Amino acid sequence: MKCCFGVDVGGTTVKMGLFGESGKILDKWEIVTRTENKGEAILGDISASILNKMQERQLDKSAVLGVGVGVPAPVTGDGIVTGSANLGWKYKEAKKELESFTGLKTRIENDANVAALGEMWKGGGLGQKNIVMVTLGTGIGGGVVIDGKIVPGAHGSAGEIGHICVNYEETDVCGCGNFGCLEQYASATGIVRLAKKKLAQAEIDTILKKEEVSAKSVFEAVKAGDAAATEVAEQFGRYLGYTLANLAAVVDPAVFVIGGGVSKAGEVLIPFIQKSYLERALFAVKDVKFTLAALGNDAGICGSAKMILGE
Amino acid sequence: MKCCFGVDVGGTTVKMGLFGESGKILDKWEIVTRTENKGEAILGDISASILNKMQERQLDKSAVLGVGVGVPAPVTGDGIVTGSANLGWKYKEAKKELESFTGLKTRIENDANVAALGEMWKGGGLGQKNIVMVTLGTGIGGGVVIDGKIVPGAHGSAGEIGHICVNYEETDVCGCGNFGCLEQYASATGIVRLAKKKLAQAEIDTILKKEEVSAKSVFEAVKAGDAAATEVAEQFGRYLGYTLANLAAVVDPAVFVIGGGVSKAGEVLIPFIQKSYLERALFAVKDVKFTLAALGNDAGICGSAKMILGE
Repeated sequence: MKCCFGVDVGGTTVKMGLFGESGKILDKWEIVTRTENKGEAILGDISASILNKMQERQLDKSAVLGVGVGVPAPVTGDGIVTGSANLGWKYKEAKKELESFTGLKTRIENDANVAALGEMWKGGGLGQKNIVMVTLGTGIGGGVVIDGKIVPGAHGSAGEIGHICVNYEETDVCGCGNFGCLEQYASATGIVRLAKKKLAQAEIDTILKKEEVSAKSVFEAVKAGDAAATEVAEQFGRYLGYTLANLAAVVDPAVFVIGGGVSKAGEVLIPFIQKSYLERALFAVKDVKFTLAALGNDAGICGSAKMILGE
Repeated sequence: MKCCFGVDVGGTTVKMGLFGESGKILDKWEIVTRTENKGEAILGDISASILNKMQERQLDKSAVLGVGVGVPAPVTGDGIVTGSANLGWKYKEAKKELESFTGLKTRIENDANVAALGEMWKGGGLGQKNIVMVTLGTGIGGGVVIDGKIVPGAHGSAGEIGHICVNYEETDVCGCGNFGCLEQYASATGIVRLAKKKLAQAEIDTILKKEEVSAKSVFEAVKAGDAAATEVAEQFGRYLGYTLANLAAVVDPAVFVIGGGVSKAGEVLIPFIQKSYLERALFAVKDVKFTLAALGNDAGICGSAKMILGE
């Protein structure tokens, strides 16, 4: 039986999986990401872990279809990373290095794009070929999958949904250097920012005042019927829903998959996004599904494996 | 030698081309689009014209690789058109009908998407595989080509760039029923609208007052150094450039190809768009080319043929 490896490189750990050619996860493990010295050990560590696993399972090279890898950085068509703050990398010919270490065919893409492919394959986009995944974490990432294939973009920067400008009047600067990026309103950090502005208004009675405000506490307060928290959720939904309506006029997906830490709030999120989406979407693209990501931390290894097993 | 047909169905004429398998245009002609009786004759007319041409040139069916067709409507993955105002069609199984008339393999896509593929192949996007084409006509159409292939979208509505909302404060309604669509500012009609608002300001001295204002007269006045016209062009460039910056964060093309009637103004357009684009684009996608469409009326037949010759 043939198999492949799916690898998801994060700033703290590298998640790894061994997949059968039918797509079944045969094994799953993690190694530490050693980011010291500009992350020079990372690719060697990954390669050693793959070769060890092959030895442990007595897998011959001819049985391994390849290695798929997701990294937190833009990746060019040749598998070159020009810089990753999370890993400490500057210019790195990541695909070439991994292939020379392991002797296995390797494909590398941006981690958010890979996660989108994983969710299409086994998660929130199951059964679809055209999806957009939005990852609401500390920042906002995203991935576009068209006809079952990742859209990497000419500079490896497709799916950078968090940096769509949604407010040209914004005076606070985003991490990217621009002003008014979606990430400033609809990420976990952005939701806290919206909530703090709401709390700064005098005379508001809300349970949000009782504890340190977080995206989680906002949506818990929404579930408890808190009016101020609901207004924050409506603002969040408007920024995100309007943006996705614009995005639908460009790539017209069948499903939007909402993932990342914020999505742990659950189904409560969806109506806020969907209501604003429907207010603004072109009539031809109103019939779109919104689902929650379903694979959690496995999205990356699954998407990486899928790149090898055939998009 | 093998060949194929490229067909571009417009509301007035159907443009048709015969292409060699190397991509050379061997013949080019037009027939009238008979839109009466819900356009019921259109597909039969196209089929008859193809069969005539095959007879005239003594082409056997085995020599014809297929027929590519662009239509002014969204097209589903099965080649079904659910309605086209320009052609009078309601629900029409266009691919199936054409294939049964001609016995030739047929592929149908939206005309703006097809034109984008044509421009990638032989026009403003020559040498590239990831392009976005923006067609600035009476309205605004567009097409997205990723890895050399048209992105049709789940509802056949990808590339509807004209209906991205760029102004949530707008009170005038767009043809689509929404408010603040790009088309209301950056199409030929939109540019006239911006110019008329500028002219309505008292005390403005501008050569635009001398004649009926049009997109053409605005850009001619810009070339003549007219200050008011230049301000209108700056507004146009801001709406379009900011939108393309947002779009680049989603699909990250290598080139934006600007086409349609407005693009006949020539190179004078580009700096207005590019300046605003660079103000707002994410750092990773700033290095993008802006080119003018180069194929004119042939973009449709070329893109249609390219769908058959292999994207």
